[in-house]
Amino acid sequence: MCELLGMSANVPTDIVFSFTGLVERGGVTGPHKDGWGITFYDGKGCRSFKDPLPSCESEVAKLIKNYPIKSKAVISHIRQANSGGVCLENTHPFTRELWGQNWCYAHNGQLSDYKEVLQPTRFQPIGQTDSELAFCWMLDKISQRFDAMPKDTQLLFDFVRSLGDELKALGVFNLLLSNGDYIIAYCSNNLSWITRRAPFGKATLIDTDVVIDFHEETTPNDIVTVIATRPLTNNESWHIMAPGQCVMFKLGEKVHEFVPQVSEKAS
Amino acid sequence: MCELLGMSANVPTDIVFSFTGLVERGGVTGPHKDGWGITFYDGKGCRSFKDPLPSCESEVAKLIKNYPIKSKAVISHIRQANSGGVCLENTHPFTRELWGQNWCYAHNGQLSDYKEVLQPTRFQPIGQTDSELAFCWMLDKISQRFDAMPKDTQLLFDFVRSLGDELKALGVFNLLLSNGDYIIAYCSNNLSWITRRAPFGKATLIDTDVVIDFHEETTPNDIVTVIATRPLTNNESWHIMAPGQCVMFKLGEKVHEFVPQVSEKAS
Repeated sequence: MCELLGMSANVPTDIVFSFTGLVERGGVTGPHKDGWGITFYDGKGCRSFKDPLPSCESEVAKLIKNYPIKSKAVISHIRQANSGGVCLENTHPFTRELWGQNWCYAHNGQLSDYKEVLQPTRFQPIGQTDSELAFCWMLDKISQRFDAMPKDTQLLFDFVRSLGDELKALGVFNLLLSNGDYIIAYCSNNLSWITRRAPFGKATLIDTDVVIDFHEETTPNDIVTVIATRPLTNNESWHIMAPGQCVMFKLGEKVHEFVPQVSEKAS
Repeated sequence: MCELLGMSANVPTDIVFSFTGLVERGGVTGPHKDGWGITFYDGKGCRSFKDPLPSCESEVAKLIKNYPIKSKAVISHIRQANSGGVCLENTHPFTRELWGQNWCYAHNGQLSDYKEVLQPTRFQPIGQTDSELAFCWMLDKISQRFDAMPKDTQLLFDFVRSLGDELKALGVFNLLLSNGDYIIAYCSNNLSWITRRAPFGKATLIDTDVVIDFHEETTPNDIVTVIATRPLTNNESWHIMAPGQCVMFKLGEKVHEFVPQVSEKAS
């Protein structure tokens, strides 16, 4: 499995605090030694930093920790390989252009018996992972369903969630997907999120001995949502997502959510 | 105008020496202050480092200078904006996936009256530059002409060169284009290249006080071609390309070349 990290904010915000926690999971507190990547949006542009080296040893990860790049939308991933070798082309996040927008994607989980089902045409995988194939398949489906970014984002949200359900049926599919404006999080078994806003307090990372006082780092109007495979702090209240749950964020705020009905049998 | 830099090599090679010279042109010896980027291929994958800041002040450029990333194919660009604002989405190199390959592109020059002519459909620009629009148009044309990477690379070379001719007719179009295996260089008015192989000697950068002894940095089998807008060293013999000239490199070796006939009138 892997670790996902996403951020949506209403002002350009640095993700160094959360990334510092995540990086520890790449070879220190976690077994995710098979590369890592992070994509920062800046306007319509985005830039990805990737390394097939473990994040805890990576010179590029050190740069990210020491040189805060502020962004309103970030997706990051550290990898424990299960499908596809350890190499740059198999390193998340993956990006493609659709409708003149940068789409960025990271996946935690593993799919089975997917090769017959996932046969994209317009978007082709470059590497060998099930993850990138599923991304290409999703973008194929999205580009077939919509000619352009739909003005009613509920339509996009519902469609992406339905694709998430299809992929979840093939195995484990925890998803972060963004076009820079929106981040969609789909939970198969492990995904959690927190929205921080005034009054800001202190937070303590679980994975390394770091405390941050967000009150000193923010203004009263800041709204920052962080999404992660597992909660990154041990003194805050995270939303733990249910299987099949899907959330869409914009500028730090939740704009759409789907919570699956729990059947009586399962409750 | 901008500065282009490309490298094709038969062994993973670091480009720190040439990049050090190029970076000086981004605000010290040259006026190219409007951002820079560099893309390194590694297998089928590639990673781009970009910054809308001047390269001579960029923390990310410092990383590239201090942490040599070895690659067999590199494309780099520093920008002096003429079309499109100074922002990340307008920063070269641009990348797109075609045929499950990473295609990477950088352009030096400026086009006029192009909006009626360049109307790509499958590939859409994300930023506002004429450069990215021309890239999308080229990939559109290439994807319409070939269903997959042609086995006979002469066909691809000839087709890309013909597209270069069309774009050159719209203004100034110096091009570097790569899929990781090949680098195609098309000259509109300023492009030069050099192939270094044994016996290696010393080289002195024009733009900053750096000398390198390639003999100490290489093995006798290494073949490394560097392509740049203007020669980067002052004690070596560079090939200065003619308008309309086009060259394709693989693993440091020239594999295809087109030299336009000089008419008697012009000679």
